[in-house]
Parts: sequence; structure tokens; C-alpha cells
Amino acid sequence: MHIVIAGGGFAGINAAKALGNKKDVKVTLIDKKNHHLFQPLLYQVAMAGLSPAEIAAPIRSLLSKYRNIRVLQTKLMDINQDENTIKTDFKDITYDYLILACGAKTTYFGNENWECNAPGLKTIEQATEIRRRVLTAFEDAERTDDPEMQKFHLTFVIVGGGPTGVELAGAIGEMSRFTLAKDFKNANPKLTRIILVEAGKNILNDFSRKLRERAVRDLEKLGVQVWTSSKVTDIDDKSVTIGNEKIQTANVLWAAGIKAFEPAKNLNPKTDYMGRIVVEKDLSIPGHKNIFVTGDLASFEQENIGLLPPLAPVAMQQGTFCAKNILREINGKERLGFAYKDKGKMATIGRSKAIVEVGKLKLSGFFAWLIWLVIHIYYLSGFKNKFFVFLNWSWSYLSFKKGARLILSKKWKSD
Amino acid sequence: MHIVIAGGGFAGINAAKALGNKKDVKVTLIDKKNHHLFQPLLYQVAMAGLSPAEIAAPIRSLLSKYRNIRVLQTKLMDINQDENTIKTDFKDITYDYLILACGAKTTYFGNENWECNAPGLKTIEQATEIRRRVLTAFEDAERTDDPEMQKFHLTFVIVGGGPTGVELAGAIGEMSRFTLAKDFKNANPKLTRIILVEAGKNILNDFSRKLRERAVRDLEKLGVQVWTSSKVTDIDDKSVTIGNEKIQTANVLWAAGIKAFEPAKNLNPKTDYMGRIVVEKDLSIPGHKNIFVTGDLASFEQENIGLLPPLAPVAMQQGTFCAKNILREINGKERLGFAYKDKGKMATIGRSKAIVEVGKLKLSGFFAWLIWLVIHIYYLSGFKNKFFVFLNWSWSYLSFKKGARLILSKKWKSD
Repeated sequence: MHIVIAGGGFAGINAAKALGNKKDVKVTLIDKKNHHLFQPLLYQVAMAGLSPAEIAAPIRSLLSKYRNIRVLQTKLMDINQDENTIKTDFKDITYDYLILACGAKTTYFGNENWECNAPGLKTIEQATEIRRRVLTAFEDAERTDDPEMQKFHLTFVIVGGGPTGVELAGAIGEMSRFTLAKDFKNANPKLTRIILVEAGKNILNDFSRKLRERAVRDLEKLGVQVWTSSKVTDIDDKSVTIGNEKIQTANVLWAAGIKAFEPAKNLNPKTDYMGRIVVEKDLSIPGHKNIFVTGDLASFEQENIGLLPPLAPVAMQQGTFCAKNILREINGKERLGFAYKDKGKMATIGRSKAIVEVGKLKLSGFFAWLIWLVIHIYYLSGFKNKFFVFLNWSWSYLSFKKGARLILSKKWKSD
Repeated sequence: MHIVIAGGGFAGINAAKALGNKKDVKVTLIDKKNHHLFQPLLYQVAMAGLSPAEIAAPIRSLLSKYRNIRVLQTKLMDINQDENTIKTDFKDITYDYLILACGAKTTYFGNENWECNAPGLKTIEQATEIRRRVLTAFEDAERTDDPEMQKFHLTFVIVGGGPTGVELAGAIGEMSRFTLAKDFKNANPKLTRIILVEAGKNILNDFSRKLRERAVRDLEKLGVQVWTSSKVTDIDDKSVTIGNEKIQTANVLWAAGIKAFEPAKNLNPKTDYMGRIVVEKDLSIPGHKNIFVTGDLASFEQENIGLLPPLAPVAMQQGTFCAKNILREINGKERLGFAYKDKGKMATIGRSKAIVEVGKLKLSGFFAWLIWLVIHIYYLSGFKNKFFVFLNWSWSYLSFKKGARLILSKKWKSD
């Protein structure tokens, strides 16, 4: 049996591991990138706290111990469900089972031209671009003596009040108040203005009211202004318009929404409001029993919860489940239906602050931050990454410094 | 007294540190990059062993404890020696003393169009571009079943037999034999062909015959073919021509020559064959007593040695010396003449092998490699970088792995 997995994110890697070294099973995992990315920590790369290699590992190295798995760096172009083949950018591959785990990307809800002035945060390349912009803004402020221009460079607007937006806003607050304060002698990073914009009534809407309010207070302590019920109506290279108010800034970060990739267009699948493919209880596409969808790409409705959110734990559980279901079928057993086990949710807000919600248990402050820290290190792939991220965090915590404050140019050729 | 330093490399940083918190002295250091780079380890970034942030640190953070030093990220455009001002890309700055420490870049000896097919190794951007190309070559080899195409992708040509070329060739040898061997299932990285091309009679020409021969043997053990007295006559996107022999490869790395930057064109200075400015004994430009030149930009002839080579130790000593000379003059003392103290030279050849030459002492093999390792860690800037590089090396040594095997795309916008 040949199982093809498209995508090396949480869902794809977990599916591959569950199929690794299993009898009578051959696996091909394709991904357009060579690395698996630990996305929950990507904002720390954007905020110069971690290096890209500390939260990313080569997919083929993660899977090298499984003799039956082949990894190919290539892009999924199309699916031919009648012939059970996928088209990639260099050849066709035939499958018996196909697991789609291609994930999601940033959406601007129809204003895709905003992207160049408001990068999203889904890839390492975007994270280092954000890092370049944020650090350059402080350098630009240092270069000018005009208070108005300093204000312009030191204004940051983060769009989207979910965990990513909150983490970005908190990290900029922390960076400007602690890390950079001593390093600049002309501009004063402590004057940095940070606005977190959320279209809905609340930031961190998935959390309970008490924790949401605590998060707002923690953000405000770091100098972040939280603007809820506020909608971005325009972005250009010098300003962002929120409702009718125009804010002068070139530093806009976008954490407002994601949209699933579209790998299965010609299957014409039913999709939800995020473009995710609506799946059966066994995660297969209706009418295509041997094609499964997992992770951010899958729209799965669960009793008592509703549509599952596009989160890492969901992707991991679906990846593993899907692989095990295929093994069951190969061994002559019936398929099972997926059920997500909610282990709780969390978000961090700058130095030593986080909120954690597990069922009725609600935690905030330093202890919640410690839990956040331990869990993120636990799930990071590979002993080496865990160890280095732990050391980096310890060092940053004690020294108030950030370890990866590099402004890299986009071109490599010499001038 | 206002002292302007142009360049945050070894010379510039050491000059700034020697002037830090000194009475009656104000310092402005400008650099077009925001980071100081530990260039001797740059090849390890290109070879996926270290992350950029591990060998680079923000200049302003290195100098933040000195109250009298201001750091500006800007480019030196021109010098107006009559008015004692420099022109930068955003304003003019007046100086009493000017220290030029702008360094050098890669030269292709008139064939500058070769650059896009044979990147040099002077900046982090170039290092990550080389990393991208080298890792992509192995991915491309894995994708094809055609032995000829696999051979094409797994052929590497390194031009230039100095320490950088030797280090790159050795590292590719090590990577293909050890690190990648298990990760690829279709291509065999052990078949990688590596050619080190040197136009002169010997590689590592500054070392004694015994050590040079040892280095060649060590390289050959790693599968590197050493072609001396061989000149590259053409490079295109699919081949490199060495003499009359055409080698089919897209993987050409250039470590053959450097050329000084030209910050002082309108001073019309006398330059040497590398474009370096010929300086007086006190490192000033003849006829311009208050303009000093240091590091790779300076052409300094010393008795018994001849022209000093463009090496980190020379730059560090000249930077510090130059700053102290200025302080002497400000305090009413006479200027001194510079003299380089040669502390020896070294090069490393893959895992556990190096050569070290200090006066008559000549070392090779594992012990020389340990010395190489200790000295490089000692000179790395900042406690954090030292500690992390040491840990990274320990981990790589024990695990045979490389920690930063990321292929990053050049664009950050989503598809």
C-alpha cells in the first residue's frame, strides 16, 4: 500500500510517524519546504528572540529512521482522483491512500494587496521579514531628530486579537520597554506606541471573560493599547486606517485571519467560511473514501464543540488518527470516527505572563507562563531544538536581551 | 573631539571599544548593517552548522555600555576631507578624526558576471544563499532517478585554496559523508564529488610545506579532489570550465579573492593590488593626518613580513592601535608606529582536523582542531554567542548532525 502525505506540518509529520516502519506500507511525504516548522513559536523568530533553525527541523531528518518513508521537496499541483495520482512540480505520484495536510495561509479578506504593507506570520520567511521591519523601524527612529518622524517610526499596529496578535503585541511591548531601552541614545524606545486592533468585541475570544480581561491588563502594562470593535479599512505604505481614524505608521503586522490552501479544487469539495474542506467523521472527503484531510485544511464539526479550530493540537491528533485508521483498514478492521480531545488552550503576553484555560481551570500570570513554557518545549521536535530553546529563553529571561537581532538584507549579491 | 568610525567589523569594533567612555571623546560608529559579524565562522553558517545569530551580534548592543558612543545604521557615501565631513545616505557628519574600517568584498578579477553562479562568502546573506544552494542540490538529487542528473546535482566546485575554500570543501565533504548519508534514500550523498580549485601551485600557501601536504591528505580522506595550478576560465549556470575541462555543475562557490571597498575615492589614495589604501606607519593616509585606515582596507608593509594579510587578527590590532594613537595625540603625546604581532595562523578541515602554525610550532590533526576550536570560541563576541556555539559544536560533534539545515525562499510573500 502506498500512502502519500501532502504537507510536513503537525498533521503530516504525525501521520508519517504513525505509519513509520509499519508492515506492507510505503509512505511518500511531500512538502514544498524542506523543514517542519513549530509554528506556535514563530512569533519569537519575528521578535528576534529565537533563530529560525531553533524552531524548524529538516523533515527528512525527522523521519530518517523510518525505512519505509521517502521525503520529497516538491509542490502538490493537482489531484487526479480517478487515476489515484497527484501531480507535483516534477512528476506524478500514484497513491492508494492520500492524506492532505497542506495547512493554511494568511488571508486579507479580499484586500490581498495589503500584504506588502502588512505581512502575515505563517512562514519563516515572513517571520524574518517582520523581524527586519521591526528592527529597522527602531534604527530609523534613531537616525532622525524630528520628534514627529520618531513617532512615525515608533508606532506599531497589530491587526487581529487572537493568540498570535496578542503574542506579537506583547513581544513588541517587552522589546521596546526592556530589551532596546539602553541601546538607543537618540530615540527613546520606551515611547513606542503599540495598538492591537480587533474587529470583534473581545481579544482572545476563545478564552473566558476573566482571562481575557487579565490579558488586556497585562498588555496595557506593556504599553499596548487594545482597540476592540475596530475594523481596519485601509492600509498603505505610510498609514493604516482604523474605522475613520488614520494612524501614521509603516509598521503594520497582520494576524487577523487564515484561509486554507486549495489543493483539491477539481474534487470540488464543500468548504467552510475559512475555505477548509468539510470532511466525514473518518476525515475522508465525501465520495472519496481514500482521500483524507487533516489539520488546518479540514473542517470538522464535533458535538458539543462545533467546528474545530485551526490549532496545532487538532492537527497532531488528526494526523495520528488518520494514519491509524488507514492501518486498521489495511488490516481488515473498520474505520473509526475522529474525536478531538481538548487539552486546553493558552496564550502568552510578553515576559512572565500568560493565560491558560483547561476545562474549568483558569490560570494567569507567572505560573501560567511557566506552564506555557514547559508545554511548548515539550512539543518542540527533536532533543536539540528543545534544549537550545530552553537555554535561549533562560538567557533572555535573565539578561532581558534578545538573541537574534539581525537585520538581513533581501539580496545576497554584493553592491 | 569627535571621532567617526566607518565600519563595525573587527577593526571598527575594537577601535570603538578602545575609545569607549574616554574623557573628552565622542564617537560615532556607522555601518550599513546592524550587526557585527564574526567572519572566521561564516563558512559554518553556509554549511548549515550554525545559525546566523550565533556568529553575529547587534553593533549597538556590543557598544551600549559606552555612554560616549553613538551607533548609526547608515552607509558611507563620500568623504569631504577639506571640510572634515562624511556624507552618509541620510545626513552629513563632521569629524575631527576619521577611522575607515569598511573592509573588503569578493572579487572575480574582472569577471564580475560570474557572481550569480558562484556566490562569495563575506556576508550572512551570502552564507544563507550558499546554504540554500548546497541543501537544494541534495534535494534535487533525491528527486531524480537519472544517474547523470544525480551526478550533476552532487558535484561541487570550490574556487580558491585559501582557508575559506579549504573550510568550505572540507565541510561539504563531511556533510555528504556523515550528516546527510542516512537522510536520503534515492540519491547517495556519499557519491558527492567535490573539487577544490586553486590557481597557484599550493593550497594554503601561507602555511609550511608539511602542513599543506597534511591538509591535502585530510581533504582527500573527505572525498575532496584538490586541483592546484588550475584556473577557472568560465562559469555559467550549468558548468564551470577549469583550464580546458568543462565540469557539469550548478554548485560553484567562490573563495578566490577579495578586494577592498572604495570609500575614499576622491582622496585619490595610492592602493595596492587588492585595492587596499597604502598607509603611513601610524595608519593614516599620506597627506591626511586625521584620516586613518584599518583592517582589510589598509595596505601596510611591515619589515620582515611584507604586506600584512587581510586577516581578523590584523584588523583587531590595527583598530585598537589606531584608537590609542588618537587618544595619545589628544593628550599631547606623539603618535606611534604600528607593528603587527603575529600570533600564528590556522585552518580547519572538516571534523576533528585542523592545521595550526605559530612561528616554528606546527600542529595538525585532532589536537590542532581543539586549539582552533578554543581560540574561535574565545574571540567570539559576547558570552551568549560563545556559549551557544560551544554547545552547538558539542552537539554536532557527538551526533554527526548539522543544526541549521534550512532551505529558505528568497521571497516572503505568500503564493
